[in-house]
Amino acid sequence: MHLNYYQKEDQVLLAVDCIIFGFDKENLKILLIKRNFEPEKGKWSLIGGFLKKNENLDEAAVRVLETLTGLNDIYLEQIHTYSKIDRDPGQRTISVAYFALIDVDSHHFDGIQIDAAHWFDIKEAPNLIFDHNEMVQKAKARLKRRALSKPIGFELLPEKFTMRQLQNLYESILDKKLDKRNFINKINSLDVLIKLDEKDMSVSRKGAYLYVFDKDKYEKKVEEDGFIFKI
Amino acid sequence: MHLNYYQKEDQVLLAVDCIIFGFDKENLKILLIKRNFEPEKGKWSLIGGFLKKNENLDEAAVRVLETLTGLNDIYLEQIHTYSKIDRDPGQRTISVAYFALIDVDSHHFDGIQIDAAHWFDIKEAPNLIFDHNEMVQKAKARLKRRALSKPIGFELLPEKFTMRQLQNLYESILDKKLDKRNFINKINSLDVLIKLDEKDMSVSRKGAYLYVFDKDKYEKKVEEDGFIFKI
Repeated sequence: MHLNYYQKEDQVLLAVDCIIFGFDKENLKILLIKRNFEPEKGKWSLIGGFLKKNENLDEAAVRVLETLTGLNDIYLEQIHTYSKIDRDPGQRTISVAYFALIDVDSHHFDGIQIDAAHWFDIKEAPNLIFDHNEMVQKAKARLKRRALSKPIGFELLPEKFTMRQLQNLYESILDKKLDKRNFINKINSLDVLIKLDEKDMSVSRKGAYLYVFDKDKYEKKVEEDGFIFKI
Repeated sequence: MHLNYYQKEDQVLLAVDCIIFGFDKENLKILLIKRNFEPEKGKWSLIGGFLKKNENLDEAAVRVLETLTGLNDIYLEQIHTYSKIDRDPGQRTISVAYFALIDVDSHHFDGIQIDAAHWFDIKEAPNLIFDHNEMVQKAKARLKRRALSKPIGFELLPEKFTMRQLQNLYESILDKKLDKRNFINKINSLDVLIKLDEKDMSVSRKGAYLYVFDKDKYEKKVEEDGFIFKI
């Protein structure tokens, strides 16, 4: 009997779209693909796909990302659901946006869309289809807020990294130059880094010390409320 | 031609559920209704309903809230979309949770569900249907994070309020007692209050000064990044 109650309601298509941020030790990047079907065929798009009957949204995001790019075991987080009536001119589709953070150099693609996928510098990203530009703006704001309130970098940096690379990452996310000495002091006060007895010799003749995150301390800081990284 | 692409995909029901927080100058409350249809008829539930063809999610949340309670012009914010396959035993339904903040005393209900609706003290709320408990937990965490990073109270307090009422609100949200002098110092350092030359005489023989929010300064602080209210 209660089925009647549900059955008179309108059904809709539900999609997921992934804003995939990457870092290549220098700049913040975003992974986009060239759409290979109408409408908007040939234009740049976020990586996305439809929700299926047998999965929840998180599972759909993981499947879409893995199928199209070959990437798996990626940190994904739901950020917002977009529902403007005409957002997709093909058919009404509600889309749930996810954001992902990855280290560009440690991830190799072998998904079905690999030829169509491309990493863009976040500052040089092309115009996107539908409301995908709006999704990217929200994801950037989320990433910025995260960087100001929690330690960040674990998913974006290689295991070992230099202080300069960490500063590059914060500068990319916050979109401003930071004072080096001030940055180092702030980062050290977070107490989430371990300085290694090992140098990256590729950057200068003297080399630069390498660091790793202290995973336990890092996770603890991420969980903490009321923390702020003021820079 | 592209329609074929969309038409082979699964469609689902999409609903909105509203976590409505209220404040009565003493305690944080939540508005719940007794569900009047199966499944789970007679149990306590968030206020919700299905998305219709001719509206986006924000509009659906506004409509559902107004139809069921008579409340309009309420601050609503989307927080998360829930999609576990069996979350609704009636039929697969994806639900987008919204949270709302209102001042209990200034809002009078006259919607169709008014007899079934009830304000519960947040600490004494009953067990809810489906995954609604999980939604409330997320909304409480969001409210707490908001109270720690932005000024809060504009939507929850009456226009004029005492410092004690504002402290009650923060204590309810953060779920802990706060030191009075420390709280007053922190709040004053925010510089978002205007002290009136007028007292609430109902609280004691001496009375307590009334305050209003300086709306411009308040809004500016809400927009600011990197602010933290450490208490």
